[in-house]
Amino acid sequence: MEKIAKISVPGGVRLGSVATGVRYRGREDLMLAEFPSGTSVAGVFTRSNVQAAPVRWCRRHIGGGRARGLLVNAGNANACTGRQGDAVAKACARAVAKRLDCPISEVLLASTGVIGEPLESKPLIKGIESAYGCLSGNKSRWYEAARAIVTTDTFPKAVSHRFEADGASYVLNGIAKGSGMIAPNMATMLAFFFTDAKVSKTSLGRLLRNAVEESFHRISVDGDSSTNDSVLLFATGAASEKPLSSKGLRRFGEVLRKAAGELARLIVVDGEGARKFVTIEVKGAVSKPSARRVGFAVANSPLVKTALSGEDANWGRIAMAVGKSGERIDAARLAITMGGVTLARRGAAVVLGGSDKRKLSRHMRAREIHIGISLGVGKGVDEVWTCDLSHGYVSINANYRS
Amino acid sequence: MEKIAKISVPGGVRLGSVATGVRYRGREDLMLAEFPSGTSVAGVFTRSNVQAAPVRWCRRHIGGGRARGLLVNAGNANACTGRQGDAVAKACARAVAKRLDCPISEVLLASTGVIGEPLESKPLIKGIESAYGCLSGNKSRWYEAARAIVTTDTFPKAVSHRFEADGASYVLNGIAKGSGMIAPNMATMLAFFFTDAKVSKTSLGRLLRNAVEESFHRISVDGDSSTNDSVLLFATGAASEKPLSSKGLRRFGEVLRKAAGELARLIVVDGEGARKFVTIEVKGAVSKPSARRVGFAVANSPLVKTALSGEDANWGRIAMAVGKSGERIDAARLAITMGGVTLARRGAAVVLGGSDKRKLSRHMRAREIHIGISLGVGKGVDEVWTCDLSHGYVSINANYRS
Repeated sequence: MEKIAKISVPGGVRLGSVATGVRYRGREDLMLAEFPSGTSVAGVFTRSNVQAAPVRWCRRHIGGGRARGLLVNAGNANACTGRQGDAVAKACARAVAKRLDCPISEVLLASTGVIGEPLESKPLIKGIESAYGCLSGNKSRWYEAARAIVTTDTFPKAVSHRFEADGASYVLNGIAKGSGMIAPNMATMLAFFFTDAKVSKTSLGRLLRNAVEESFHRISVDGDSSTNDSVLLFATGAASEKPLSSKGLRRFGEVLRKAAGELARLIVVDGEGARKFVTIEVKGAVSKPSARRVGFAVANSPLVKTALSGEDANWGRIAMAVGKSGERIDAARLAITMGGVTLARRGAAVVLGGSDKRKLSRHMRAREIHIGISLGVGKGVDEVWTCDLSHGYVSINANYRS
Repeated sequence: MEKIAKISVPGGVRLGSVATGVRYRGREDLMLAEFPSGTSVAGVFTRSNVQAAPVRWCRRHIGGGRARGLLVNAGNANACTGRQGDAVAKACARAVAKRLDCPISEVLLASTGVIGEPLESKPLIKGIESAYGCLSGNKSRWYEAARAIVTTDTFPKAVSHRFEADGASYVLNGIAKGSGMIAPNMATMLAFFFTDAKVSKTSLGRLLRNAVEESFHRISVDGDSSTNDSVLLFATGAASEKPLSSKGLRRFGEVLRKAAGELARLIVVDGEGARKFVTIEVKGAVSKPSARRVGFAVANSPLVKTALSGEDANWGRIAMAVGKSGERIDAARLAITMGGVTLARRGAAVVLGGSDKRKLSRHMRAREIHIGISLGVGKGVDEVWTCDLSHGYVSINANYRS
């Protein structure tokens, strides 16, 4: 998995990144994107009941399905900031709308950073002016944008795909930030996708929900989820005036799903303190949602995660986590594999031969771990992606000062 | 909080502890208790769908409400051990029943230790013989019993209360083990209560469920729960032939609830790697269960727990955990206190004065931490107890080898 992809440029998108000094010194932390008129947009947001001001702003306006601007700031989440936070969000949207000459309802916002810290609009408004002054469609701007939106991430995250549909050639780019479902107080998973295909807001919404379901909704670093999580998808239509056909939409959906999967995996790879990327594949469940819930019970178990950090093939802890999920299983038919080696069958231990022991030991030391779980009650299948829980996670999060 | 209490002895209970060598060397790991005929019993067991053989055994027989014997072994959980595991459980119950001259349905079993490791009946049967040979009602046997049932606990856990009811004097003793809802592969929270009052199985069941609801169901070390969790309550009737009256039962219920609360708190104090005992008090919820779910969302958040380990009053992470609980809240009325200092009010930060800052800083360095959360939507109140997540937890669980 490449940590940052070779970038193509989707037509119609111009980007600018600047440093506001709100929290960080000596790095860019504000990203402005401009889209041509006619750009459609869809979004998916955090399910948390505590929602940041920019999330509330987007929810209010995304129904219109039109976007001319996107503003993202890193360092302050503008969450738990009361009415003042809403006022700052509105002031930022107004400043962007004025520059882009569009209704404020066509400006989307996202923030990531400390929760509960009052945010001033002044440095942001100043940043918007600077960012507007340097908007450009250059390739290098995409790398800068991916860097400008990170907080505790250890590397920027971007993917880029060219695809053919309906006889034309298109680009889909995605950038994301996240290191933990919520990073240490520097909240949030954010992901933004941009294509130059022409797609209606309704189709965008459907394709985005499908892609998120199979990517970002599959991952967990620590089971915590943020006040600011947002995924937005913009379609400028700059590459062709003709809307994608049903067949073209299917192709676009595939590419979007692939790109979302790549970014989701990069977030897990960059999980706080993570040294292992872990795929948990659950089958034999009563349904796909049930399989996913079992997967997350295992993925979020501190005992399973610490065992993986210690490179111990501790299937007893996996069985424990399966049991506590509350999902229907047949304990007498439970089977567990690690790295393709069957450790438990019919609910009890398998005695391993020498070659299986060696294979298992090699697998546990690798960077990518595979856990297979068979519940024995149905045909439901799903998989989730997580990382181990190491001393690094505790260091990052215990040493942080709010 | 005393780690081990001054013990009184409830009439009718005889105990014996021995070393079987099943997993440990040089320590007692098998505990046998004998009760006089007429002893009633009630139990509460793990809600996990993966249940150990001794749990299945108890569930099958506890409905009868009669107990003559209790056998507990530490080191091997007899969980995920298939039919062989059930056969070992039955063989042990049979051996105890033969010695105590009772039906095997009046023998209760509990195990704690490694999950998925085959267990042989031979050393246990031999242990039962030795333990039977040394049964005694001596006070010192209670300390030995509390020690024989532990696994990774750093101290044995026992409480003892004398109480008056209906003009007679009674004793209630409790012993427990647990260091984490599940200790590192050495599964399980176990607790056993013994009284010499005479109480019907129906009343015992009701009082036990109430007590567990306000004690063991309030705690979380790591959100993981075990295949073996069991709480049993025995009433010998040795102190008086007269069953407790309604008023006597109320008094007994109070004492039981107090004793259960004490043992539950001791388990959290002994949480793996724990350095802080944390009370999370939630009010203003739509109901008591909703308040408890919010409490557990906070108690089980790795980001909250690592912040506490780092002695950081990070209320933003608490707000995040409240939000992800999925429970009804009013984000605009959310209030959060730590150590009695209000950090957030109406969903936004409070600016602290110098004396509040000092008070807060002192509180965060203490062993006992109090978090208050007000949700602003109703009158539901509850509290949960947890500990911090430290490097110690990761070390214990990552370095363990299954």
